[in-house]
Amino acid sequence: MKEKGPLSVKRRYRQYEAAKILLEVSRVVSSSLDLDKVADLVLKESIKALDSDHASLFLMDDKLKHLVLAKARGFSQDEEGNIKLLGSWEVVNDQVVKRNRPLIVNDVYKNTIFKKMRLPFSREKLPIKSFLAVPLEKDEKAVGVLIVSNRKRPGHLFTRDDEKLLLGLSNNIAIALLNAKLYKDLKDLFLSTVKSLVRAVDAKDPYTSGHSERVMKYSLAIGRELNLDEDTLENLGLSSLLHDVGKIGIKEYILAKPGKLSVREKRQMEEHPSIGVKIVETINNSQKIIRGILEHHERVDGNGYPGHLKGRSISLEGRIIAVADAFDALTTNRPYQKRHTEKEAIFEILSGSSVQFDTQVIRAFVSSFSKRPHIWQV
Amino acid sequence: MKEKGPLSVKRRYRQYEAAKILLEVSRVVSSSLDLDKVADLVLKESIKALDSDHASLFLMDDKLKHLVLAKARGFSQDEEGNIKLLGSWEVVNDQVVKRNRPLIVNDVYKNTIFKKMRLPFSREKLPIKSFLAVPLEKDEKAVGVLIVSNRKRPGHLFTRDDEKLLLGLSNNIAIALLNAKLYKDLKDLFLSTVKSLVRAVDAKDPYTSGHSERVMKYSLAIGRELNLDEDTLENLGLSSLLHDVGKIGIKEYILAKPGKLSVREKRQMEEHPSIGVKIVETINNSQKIIRGILEHHERVDGNGYPGHLKGRSISLEGRIIAVADAFDALTTNRPYQKRHTEKEAIFEILSGSSVQFDTQVIRAFVSSFSKRPHIWQV
Repeated sequence: MKEKGPLSVKRRYRQYEAAKILLEVSRVVSSSLDLDKVADLVLKESIKALDSDHASLFLMDDKLKHLVLAKARGFSQDEEGNIKLLGSWEVVNDQVVKRNRPLIVNDVYKNTIFKKMRLPFSREKLPIKSFLAVPLEKDEKAVGVLIVSNRKRPGHLFTRDDEKLLLGLSNNIAIALLNAKLYKDLKDLFLSTVKSLVRAVDAKDPYTSGHSERVMKYSLAIGRELNLDEDTLENLGLSSLLHDVGKIGIKEYILAKPGKLSVREKRQMEEHPSIGVKIVETINNSQKIIRGILEHHERVDGNGYPGHLKGRSISLEGRIIAVADAFDALTTNRPYQKRHTEKEAIFEILSGSSVQFDTQVIRAFVSSFSKRPHIWQV
Repeated sequence: MKEKGPLSVKRRYRQYEAAKILLEVSRVVSSSLDLDKVADLVLKESIKALDSDHASLFLMDDKLKHLVLAKARGFSQDEEGNIKLLGSWEVVNDQVVKRNRPLIVNDVYKNTIFKKMRLPFSREKLPIKSFLAVPLEKDEKAVGVLIVSNRKRPGHLFTRDDEKLLLGLSNNIAIALLNAKLYKDLKDLFLSTVKSLVRAVDAKDPYTSGHSERVMKYSLAIGRELNLDEDTLENLGLSSLLHDVGKIGIKEYILAKPGKLSVREKRQMEEHPSIGVKIVETINNSQKIIRGILEHHERVDGNGYPGHLKGRSISLEGRIIAVADAFDALTTNRPYQKRHTEKEAIFEILSGSSVQFDTQVIRAFVSSFSKRPHIWQV
């Protein structure tokens, strides 16, 4: 009895400390819906909580029905390539996923199960000596495995306490990951749906197949070069994808006319930015994407349309999309021209600096082209 | 020293128990991205953890810059109307939101601050005698207030321990709510974007303005009446919203022709379901929405198009959209008819039972019409 008191205090205190860590980690890992960020936070917090060298996160692929590496932390680039194989280890699959149980292996090279396995790596290629793997489950369904490897403290041993700690977290981690996955899936559905509709609008104009998606790609490349934040980039992406949506309101024969447009036809054609704005006005928070659509045919010298805006009174989005739009028009076959090479297109755009195009945007465009030429290849 | 040991044990044990509750509640409230469900879980768990009568959740409206009731639990319907006013209580706004501090009031009618205020309700209208309010914050910004009211235990007193417990949870609750809010915002953006694009496609056909959105509304009403699950309803919604998207590939003069179409024109017009499928094929997981689009002009007797499918070999989505589509065609003015009344339209559709339309779908349609007629008013 004499010893039980203080022991209990110590033990309960440890449990209390553990619960506090769990709550904090749970808060941290659920603080984002960005799947990549959540995965990284999970690894970082696990390595910290268990004082280990590295950690890796595998998620179940619903279609392939096996574990796929989502993210690893603490490994060199070469090692990370080999880490991918961990997910195909029978022992991880059998013990952790199928039986839904944690697994501690404190010496991979002495472990009997491992001795029987033909390990797909030598000691040099994958520096894992010991590891603790826990199943991540939601509604009693395995959704992944979290593996923390190489205890830093002497002897490299993982204990039952470590196992308990990580198991206590595993539900919260699984939820945070699945929420982020749901968010990513919805984002992908959103983008692919809008792309498919925009492609159908592009198809009405026989000369601009795939145009809108390429202008989106180019606009985002310029935006990244200008270090725009993620929110602004998302709005720029949607705005550039929808920049020509107003063409749905232009008569088919004008869009398809191979020769020169008459003055009246040209005037009608030039209404497409304003028609585009009318179409997207009912989108939630549409003010964030409207100016890019409305102003992508403005020129910094004021000779553009529809507003004849000058210089910086044109929104940054409008100035970026103008350059991206011109680059795509120059590098694809049109009724009035054969396509230019990428270098000819750059020369053309440079010659429009301070007249048609904003110099800052042109600088970002040229810089992106020289750093990442593959983006700009049609 | 003699007393300190056991006291510490007790206290630490209490803290441990509290931390365990926190972790569990944190897990529960973050287990969904459905804003309404998350809010409800937060209230339910708070009432349970603090053994109270009711709880209410207020979220900061970014535009209006004041607290708006998101959800309440434990009140009668009449009382809930009055609860809305809680968010406008100066004391809640000043103490909890602005100073970012929790607030305990154990007798509203004796409290000095409250005595000075003109309370917008009598004791009968709002049965709150005591309450504990904690700020919900993320990144040091107030995003809302959680109010738990009327301690059940004798004396109706909220303690500092209660305050601590709820404060310990407040960060995790705020994150769960904000994640669900982000998800809802993305869903709204998605839906409003697709609606605006579909509206533009509808506008190409001068006779079908607003048609696709109404068909979506009607299809969902039938789907709900058939007790379809949320996932199926979401796919039915997207499928019915996009059912006529293939019309973007039909020549303008055919869409706009007021008289009867020639055989050749009719054949072209009947290609719109297949064109629609080609457009949406690139959408992620498009197989879930394709059949509704492809089969909305099939007839159960096999005389429809494009597949001449019969009976249940037509997808449920196709059979539902067919009825919703017919109802909207009948109740709006078209080149070939003046609009029918809703009752005439029901009669027409009933007369197509087992010939053009599926009887099970018709039953659900009629049942929805009699239960919720407002949905079916054009």
